[in-house]
Amino acid sequence: MISRRVAERLRRPFADFQAGVRKQATLPQGALSLGLAGTAPGVVLQTDAAVAVALPGPPRELQRLWPAAVRTAEVQRLLAHTTPPYRRVLRFYGVSESQVARVLAEAGGDGAGVEATVCARDFEIHVDLVADGADRALLDELERRLAGPLGGFLFSTDERPIEELVLSLCREQGLTLATAESCTGGLVAARLTGVPGSSDVFRGGFVAYANELKARELGVSPELLARHGAVSAETAAAMARGARERLGVEVALAVTGVAGPGGGTREKPVGLVHLHAEGPAGASSAEFSLPGDRETVRRRAAVGALHLATQLLRTDGGSAM
Amino acid sequence: MISRRVAERLRRPFADFQAGVRKQATLPQGALSLGLAGTAPGVVLQTDAAVAVALPGPPRELQRLWPAAVRTAEVQRLLAHTTPPYRRVLRFYGVSESQVARVLAEAGGDGAGVEATVCARDFEIHVDLVADGADRALLDELERRLAGPLGGFLFSTDERPIEELVLSLCREQGLTLATAESCTGGLVAARLTGVPGSSDVFRGGFVAYANELKARELGVSPELLARHGAVSAETAAAMARGARERLGVEVALAVTGVAGPGGGTREKPVGLVHLHAEGPAGASSAEFSLPGDRETVRRRAAVGALHLATQLLRTDGGSAM
Repeated sequence: MISRRVAERLRRPFADFQAGVRKQATLPQGALSLGLAGTAPGVVLQTDAAVAVALPGPPRELQRLWPAAVRTAEVQRLLAHTTPPYRRVLRFYGVSESQVARVLAEAGGDGAGVEATVCARDFEIHVDLVADGADRALLDELERRLAGPLGGFLFSTDERPIEELVLSLCREQGLTLATAESCTGGLVAARLTGVPGSSDVFRGGFVAYANELKARELGVSPELLARHGAVSAETAAAMARGARERLGVEVALAVTGVAGPGGGTREKPVGLVHLHAEGPAGASSAEFSLPGDRETVRRRAAVGALHLATQLLRTDGGSAM
Repeated sequence: MISRRVAERLRRPFADFQAGVRKQATLPQGALSLGLAGTAPGVVLQTDAAVAVALPGPPRELQRLWPAAVRTAEVQRLLAHTTPPYRRVLRFYGVSESQVARVLAEAGGDGAGVEATVCARDFEIHVDLVADGADRALLDELERRLAGPLGGFLFSTDERPIEELVLSLCREQGLTLATAESCTGGLVAARLTGVPGSSDVFRGGFVAYANELKARELGVSPELLARHGAVSAETAAAMARGARERLGVEVALAVTGVAGPGGGTREKPVGLVHLHAEGPAGASSAEFSLPGDRETVRRRAAVGALHLATQLLRTDGGSAM
């Protein structure tokens, strides 16, 4: 039944699929189908000893079928006997994983009713705290002790990615947003537009890779480019200003840098990145010297630009970082 | 020594790191350091029975240290005793994994001296064929049998990603390139600019998320937008034309679609994507109805746009797909 439905959806003869998807279409005896994620099935099977939930491996497919698994009577019966643990998420930016781990250890850390996980991800440090129901006070205390010394780096206490925070802050303040990118080449825009509903805030962006486009499309003056170079605080500021004016938005984010492996000089080595965020009440800027390969420099610069925007939007006016 | 070097590179006091990185800085007795990828070390250790190579887990860090590992005398001695197997890579686009697997099985497939792996990755089907030195002829024959029925879908026989192929084709033909993106929001530009040296071909791009920017920045006429809608073959073509003229490039790639989860209608459901590639000698276009969530639709549309460009650049003029 499942493979026929897939064949119909793809408008191809069933025979094309028969051999290849027979395995995927086989339902174990007594099992309940959770439907399909693409062509991948999920099943729930109640045995005497346990409830088995089989889901596809790829995270996206797993995530799509998981809600259906939770809704089944089998899983609901199981959940009725359990108390969900308390969970707290703390996300830091601009501090090293080892510093966070040290503060966490000094604060009591792992063990004693709380399970703490520190994970460096996407150039941020994510701390997950999980406690049994009885230990909620312990968790509050641990959060307090972390937020003390690390408060300046704490940017979120939920799981929304940084691009979603930027969009939320703009939305709350009734501001529209645009990007002007050079070395990140569209990565900042791509992250922002990855968020469902981003179109009410994000209007568009320029990828001004060639210098003549920085001048022609973003209004960066050729004199400024000649004097300071494409990778400079001055050019980043001019790109942001140009995007605000040109695209008619209130907030603009600009990135220019040397992603490498080529293009570096003694004064402007590979990894040098200038960021600029400009809003109606002020601006913030940052200069980074990023280690790593082209991909790392680009991804890290994009994350840096999003954090810079958050900082600008959280202060009233904004100032140099 | 290693941790001191890291501390110096990050310009932080060594004491900050002492506890956190002591483990990373420990060199097993008799082992040879391969240097660092970020703060992660790699080592080679020759024992009586074997050569042990320990590398960091994250793929990027592993890839950075691997060449150093291969250069060591320990690994070179080992390699001197082995014959490298023959390897062939075939990459297909526009055909299902199960179809490729069926043709491969009919062609003799796995076993009989050849190890064949079929992997669906990035919406392409990658086939890896590995044979012992003696079986090179077998491998040629297998490739011939696959390329027969699947030749129309075979786009590459090396491991370069599709964006690198697009850039190479432009470079060979002396053409410059730009993008005009709506639903992909910068993903196509980000993939192209991810390739080192892309700046000699790729000039820049627009992310025209709001309709007024499609009109103002890309010259899509408001009448055309009103008559056909932002997600239409007509708008995709006008976006490509606008990018060519506006950015002064020879080849432009345009993407417009409904990424979801909102924004779908009966006539234009979530997953509908129009692609258009225009070059000096002609144009190619494609319409997709993509299944999956927002992220999948966007990523798949971006890959589709890159393949459309390849097809345009490989034909002399280009025509509707």
